[in-house]
Amino acid sequence: MDRESKLVERIAREFRYGAAEKHARGGSALRLGIGDDAAVISSSGKNDWVLSCDAFLEGVHFLAKTHPPDSVGYKSLVRATSDLAAMGATPRYFLLTLAIPETCTGDWLHQFLRGMARAARSMKMILAGGDTTEGDTVSISVTVLGEVARRRAVPRSGARAGDIIYVSGRLGRAQLGLELLLHGNGNIPRKGSPAKSVRHTEDVPLTILQPHLCPQIRLALGAWLAKHRLASAMIDLSDGLSTDLTRLCQASGVGAEIHAAAIPVLALPAGLSKYKGRFKLDPLQMALNGGEDYELLFTVPRRKVKTLRAAPGFSQLTPIGEVTGAKKVVLVGPNGAKKPLKPQGWDPFRR
Amino acid sequence: MDRESKLVERIAREFRYGAAEKHARGGSALRLGIGDDAAVISSSGKNDWVLSCDAFLEGVHFLAKTHPPDSVGYKSLVRATSDLAAMGATPRYFLLTLAIPETCTGDWLHQFLRGMARAARSMKMILAGGDTTEGDTVSISVTVLGEVARRRAVPRSGARAGDIIYVSGRLGRAQLGLELLLHGNGNIPRKGSPAKSVRHTEDVPLTILQPHLCPQIRLALGAWLAKHRLASAMIDLSDGLSTDLTRLCQASGVGAEIHAAAIPVLALPAGLSKYKGRFKLDPLQMALNGGEDYELLFTVPRRKVKTLRAAPGFSQLTPIGEVTGAKKVVLVGPNGAKKPLKPQGWDPFRR
Repeated sequence: MDRESKLVERIAREFRYGAAEKHARGGSALRLGIGDDAAVISSSGKNDWVLSCDAFLEGVHFLAKTHPPDSVGYKSLVRATSDLAAMGATPRYFLLTLAIPETCTGDWLHQFLRGMARAARSMKMILAGGDTTEGDTVSISVTVLGEVARRRAVPRSGARAGDIIYVSGRLGRAQLGLELLLHGNGNIPRKGSPAKSVRHTEDVPLTILQPHLCPQIRLALGAWLAKHRLASAMIDLSDGLSTDLTRLCQASGVGAEIHAAAIPVLALPAGLSKYKGRFKLDPLQMALNGGEDYELLFTVPRRKVKTLRAAPGFSQLTPIGEVTGAKKVVLVGPNGAKKPLKPQGWDPFRR
Repeated sequence: MDRESKLVERIAREFRYGAAEKHARGGSALRLGIGDDAAVISSSGKNDWVLSCDAFLEGVHFLAKTHPPDSVGYKSLVRATSDLAAMGATPRYFLLTLAIPETCTGDWLHQFLRGMARAARSMKMILAGGDTTEGDTVSISVTVLGEVARRRAVPRSGARAGDIIYVSGRLGRAQLGLELLLHGNGNIPRKGSPAKSVRHTEDVPLTILQPHLCPQIRLALGAWLAKHRLASAMIDLSDGLSTDLTRLCQASGVGAEIHAAAIPVLALPAGLSKYKGRFKLDPLQMALNGGEDYELLFTVPRRKVKTLRAAPGFSQLTPIGEVTGAKKVVLVGPNGAKKPLKPQGWDPFRR
């Protein structure tokens, strides 16, 4: 188990104090709590509420001198909302807790808010509240609130042996963008929106940076899978396939066997040879352990696989393996050799 | 207007992008958004949801070497929940975003979680989720979710000229505790719960520290005022009476006249003479500008004042003045002299 998951388990243990998870008087109940992508709370209405929060910290998740404030604002909302996509929920509201140094209250804040507002517009989300304070460094916490039809939220825990494992998109693109940003020519516009610039340029590095700076998340796919009860379990790929698949398997009490040759790795773009030697460019490693792709990883019972064809963006879905009853996660190499797949994605507490 | 309020206004402006505040399809609607103590979201059920978040940062809101981790845990949940009390809501769930240095994952975290679990138990709140990561310093963000009967949440904005202004408790107690902690003998138990120790000791400084380390909040009073529609406007005193009264008046588009002699200042405890000269002990200043009392400040229409006698803890309520139509906040001195009351409470961006 990765160290972050261990810490979450320790926190969960501390708060199991015998309080019933049902608040009878209020008429609300916690359907799903700590340890999933988001909490699910049902009220007397026809929908359940889905609630999640996410920290985005200078020096940990982004670098003040490297990342444009527009991207910081955009990404801090989008990555939090990806947890709602992973439950199949439709995002509605968010709260912003923002601590910034006095020096950031001018143009930095302006660009940051612009980026965040752009993300909010694109996802039709409304800022419902928050808290602002001064801090030595920028520290952002975003709470997102979404809705899903009653009892349709997709947990991490529903995978069963025999289910087919799917991922959306190509994996490792965010990692490539990060590597280029850190070790490449750093050719990004300091002013204005990187995403907008990308649309208006043929510059290769900029296009490659976008998945890292302004990731797209899979809200339509997640909501569709929940609505049609297609996915037995789901998680978003925030910390890397090896880590997040392990988490899904542990939550479901199952194992998995995935095929290296089936994983949708990125096709390295032309023109990257000039960066050779500055950082490792191994598409499979980037797909397995690179974080922040915010694609969806989900399992589908065999009998439902045909129905999946109607999913939004079906052509971007790839079956990569199968759920097993063996409680271990195995990577099958191109030559058929099997080896354990260890969680080696992003772990904030790993040194 | 204080600088934090200005910043909140600037953020609110950035996110007014014309999205209707009603999500017709989801059946939910934002009744009250940015600028109040908490957001109010109604769904199709009989209750509204009330949602707020609060940052608690090392070096800004607490000091790593001064504040026991048990108190940090306790207080970070309680102060966030005080925003629910100020809306008249009953707390249900909370989310914890926690960034801590690796060095804090041992005993510090243990004590922190203990303190937070104690607060959760006492308020019957359930931890529903969160996010943990590594950070250079401890940075905590707590999101709280409560329920209130439909359309009964008390906003900041309902005060009308002629309403009577009330506060609960005695003001300035938290400030006194902080001053003693910073400049007094710092005699607090490093192990175990300060609150528990307080119960078992006659030591004067410990009793005085409690309002700062483990504040009690006014959930029963807030809920009662909302249920009986007694309060026309309400806010919790987190940043000091002068600042929070100004905020309530600005939100309501009114002014206020309060009487210095009526303000429930603290009676300086015996035995404090030994600290004389180390810090200023002015009870009125502490009551006006000291932060973190987490008492409730609310306004009651004249015709409803009699009904207030049935309020929980009525004997601890004090009328301190009256709402006016003049749009300015005035302090009437003991001699009858009037002078403007400027917001001089806690402001994270003031230097």
